[in-house]
Amino acid sequence: MKAIDLNCDMGESFGRYVLGTDEVLMDYVSSINLACGFHAGDPLVMQRTVEMAVKKKVAIGAHPAYPDLQGFGRRFMEMSAEEVEAMVLYQLGALWGFVKVAGAELIHVKPHGALYNRAAQDIKTARAIASAVRRFSKMLILVGLANSALVQVGQEIGLKTANEGFVERGYQEDGSLIPRGQKGDLIHDPRVAAQQAVRLATEGIAMQVSGHSVEVKVDTLCIHGDSPQAVSIVKAVRSALEEAGLEIRGMYR
Amino acid sequence: MKAIDLNCDMGESFGRYVLGTDEVLMDYVSSINLACGFHAGDPLVMQRTVEMAVKKKVAIGAHPAYPDLQGFGRRFMEMSAEEVEAMVLYQLGALWGFVKVAGAELIHVKPHGALYNRAAQDIKTARAIASAVRRFSKMLILVGLANSALVQVGQEIGLKTANEGFVERGYQEDGSLIPRGQKGDLIHDPRVAAQQAVRLATEGIAMQVSGHSVEVKVDTLCIHGDSPQAVSIVKAVRSALEEAGLEIRGMYR
Amino acid sequence: MKAIDLNCDMGESFGRYVLGTDEVLMDYVSSINLACGFHAGDPLVMQRTVEMAVKKKVAIGAHPAYPDLQGFGRRFMEMSAEEVEAMVLYQLGALWGFVKVAGAELIHVKPHGALYNRAAQDIKTARAIASAVRRFSKMLILVGLANSALVQVGQEIGLKTANEGFVERGYQEDGSLIPRGQKGDLIHDPRVAAQQAVRLATEGIAMQVSGHSVEVKVDTLCIHGDSPQAVSIVKAVRSALEEAGLEIRGMYR
Amino acid sequence: MKAIDLNCDMGESFGRYVLGTDEVLMDYVSSINLACGFHAGDPLVMQRTVEMAVKKKVAIGAHPAYPDLQGFGRRFMEMSAEEVEAMVLYQLGALWGFVKVAGAELIHVKPHGALYNRAAQDIKTARAIASAVRRFSKMLILVGLANSALVQVGQEIGLKTANEGFVERGYQEDGSLIPRGQKGDLIHDPRVAAQQAVRLATEGIAMQVSGHSVEVKVDTLCIHGDSPQAVSIVKAVRSALEEAGLEIRGMYR
Repeated sequence: MKAIDLNCDMGESFGRYVLGTDEVLMDYVSSINLACGFHAGDPLVMQRTVEMAVKKKVAIGAHPAYPDLQGFGRRFMEMSAEEVEAMVLYQLGALWGFVKVAGAELIHVKPHGALYNRAAQDIKTARAIASAVRRFSKMLILVGLANSALVQVGQEIGLKTANEGFVERGYQEDGSLIPRGQKGDLIHDPRVAAQQAVRLATEGIAMQVSGHSVEVKVDTLCIHGDSPQAVSIVKAVRSALEEAGLEIRGMYR
Repeated sequence: MKAIDLNCDMGESFGRYVLGTDEVLMDYVSSINLACGFHAGDPLVMQRTVEMAVKKKVAIGAHPAYPDLQGFGRRFMEMSAEEVEAMVLYQLGALWGFVKVAGAELIHVKPHGALYNRAAQDIKTARAIASAVRRFSKMLILVGLANSALVQVGQEIGLKTANEGFVERGYQEDGSLIPRGQKGDLIHDPRVAAQQAVRLATEGIAMQVSGHSVEVKVDTLCIHGDSPQAVSIVKAVRSALEEAGLEIRGMYR
Repeated sequence: MKAIDLNCDMGESFGRYVLGTDEVLMDYVSSINLACGFHAGDPLVMQRTVEMAVKKKVAIGAHPAYPDLQGFGRRFMEMSAEEVEAMVLYQLGALWGFVKVAGAELIHVKPHGALYNRAAQDIKTARAIASAVRRFSKMLILVGLANSALVQVGQEIGLKTANEGFVERGYQEDGSLIPRGQKGDLIHDPRVAAQQAVRLATEGIAMQVSGHSVEVKVDTLCIHGDSPQAVSIVKAVRSALEEAGLEIRGMYR
Repeated sequence: MKAIDLNCDMGESFGRYVLGTDEVLMDYVSSINLACGFHAGDPLVMQRTVEMAVKKKVAIGAHPAYPDLQGFGRRFMEMSAEEVEAMVLYQLGALWGFVKVAGAELIHVKPHGALYNRAAQDIKTARAIASAVRRFSKMLILVGLANSALVQVGQEIGLKTANEGFVERGYQEDGSLIPRGQKGDLIHDPRVAAQQAVRLATEGIAMQVSGHSVEVKVDTLCIHGDSPQAVSIVKAVRSALEEAGLEIRGMYR
């Protein structure tokens, strides 16, 4: 039986600010990417989300980001490679502490937002992140945009990597995502998202508005947790994947 | 041969802001308390200071603080016990990551500034810190003001603890420190600091301006790294301790 | 015709984090207290909220706070008087810029959260805030808890002041608020809140659970904007006040 | 008698971190660019620096920056035009408050670091800054790199502008600065800096290592306050300018 991982960004609340419905969504996904306090998340949110994940038996990964709470880590920041490496190490350690005291293990690392996008294209940033991950632990799985520089660099230095596909994002002809804010960037209809999930997971292709298909081989599928349709979409996606004969299962080494 | 630990706060630079002369001072102390990014220190500063400490073979401890860069962690912040515990865990993990990748071990934890003072007197804060430390690792040594609530609570929950004395601070009759800003708070003369160091380490007493002595049993002595006289004082203190037949040696479990 | 001011905290969103329903609530109140970026609010949120207030013709006041986004300004921070004064001046200026470019005027200042509570009791903090306000502009109205140190100090230095009552908070026998987290702290029922609003505005008394009444002379009534019942409560309160023959009107000098 | 403005970045200390020797340097310059709390400076530092400037009769300008204390505002951050405009307005207001209570006037605005560099080339960023400045006050002078997009845009929307030259930076053939970190980026020798100052101020040219000259028409000269040679350089520059018959005088409208 073929398996696919379903991941979702979580722990993005901060103090008085509540974001997402982590507790509900956690019942439908197999992995979570946990904010580490730089773009979202505070120590208490991190601790509680880790504890919840342990209880619900979902795999925990780190979701390091640029230090930009106001921009939610979605604004690119010019940084040297050594700054990126130290920044990622800091966030990995901070999250690791909560995972350790909860008796769990850190499974993967997936950069967030602008850092994710930068690492998909910029080899220096990709190397700095991959190096931080490998130095922290050779057992960690590095998650990046399918076929991106990050995944490539991770493989080169001997990390287990995972190609990620997006069930709610439109794809361009070259396999990259349609940038946020441009036409076709987001899929709001749960049925369309479910179809894309199944095609990505079973055939390794994403359909385009034009009717053409793009090859996107994936190991894990990302669901957004912060949209109003998040619960409807995750339910539709999970059902469709299971009906297509796939097991929803976390990534393991 | 009797031994005493000599510790110093380090890694307190932040970005463009350079504080202290860590590289020089590290040659004279046996332990360092490393800022974790909340009152001072940024990821790159933490990484480099850890690497320097490994090279110079000084024991590394965490120096967690309130999240207050502007106040340098010296302003008390009202926090619930669970906020304190999560905040300390976050900082322990963040530093631990750098220590781990440098091939070293985290030896002790000493709260910084207002958190240190609060934990010396407030049992709830002391318990929250001790709990965070113990959950993180039973092998960590908890450092607190000699005879404080923090040391007491640490012992109660089974942690190895260390009573700290200050070579450059004046003591009150009850064995507590003269608050900063009050008369006699700071000792600037290297010879006086050296004398206080020897009395604390060999006899377990601090002399007062009045000529009376106060019992202050200590396991480790703190030297400030951010005063203009820091280098003169640490040299004088180390020489005096060695002349008094003491070995300067890190705390070990 | 007697008039009363109805105020509400606004502009408390931050980046990706949306809090409150400012646009809806603004139709029912006469004054808003606008977050200045320290406990909530970012420059864009401030600018947009000011523009909205100008369009809806509600009076704009500043809502300065401790620099604690994570604690939403609800955690007391130990600060010197000069730190408080400079911190309030900074926030007044920052908000004033947006008010000025929108062609409006800054009418009042009301400290937020822990700073509000501290200023109600601590004379040094009250003086630091009042001094900042007066130095910034003698025309500003200083809003504080009814009969608090802040209001008293404001009057002493010649500022116009306003005593504030809370329609959704329970009162203690001495006229102070029941602390958050204690029994009776919050009123969730719109009808009860409306009754309290009318009693406060017309008779200057708040009823207690015991059935006794407490004298609380008020110039302005505060409605919370961030509770789930906010819209129901503000509608009920406004209707009840108007039925009691009161005009809802901003504070003017 | 020809006049030239000599400006220096100031107020860049933050809490425990002291940077620069503002008090000494202020005796030699005619204008200061004051950090507004985003890349450096805190409310108390801002207040004190403004008071010092008033006492020493130097003209005060705002030095707004990206919100990046750790990177000292030297790291480019991707931001929308409306984010830049709101961010600049916030900082202008915050500083203006201190200037107003000190009985002085805000004279100019000069973006800092990465924002300065971005505004020199990116028309959208330049427009956002210029718009913020003009909306805040038509009387403000907008300072930018000589012949940059920022100065051009400022002129187009009717602001008084000032072309800035650097006495300690090397110039490229096209009149732009040699980027930091590249060969010839910084001039450390006070005599060379003084020569460059005089050539810029009297002839409107900068000399290159090759011996060629580049036209750089300037209205104001910038001196760095945070280098170890800052005092020597400012003295040498001021003497040389005065010997060349120039009056050192702030910019006025």
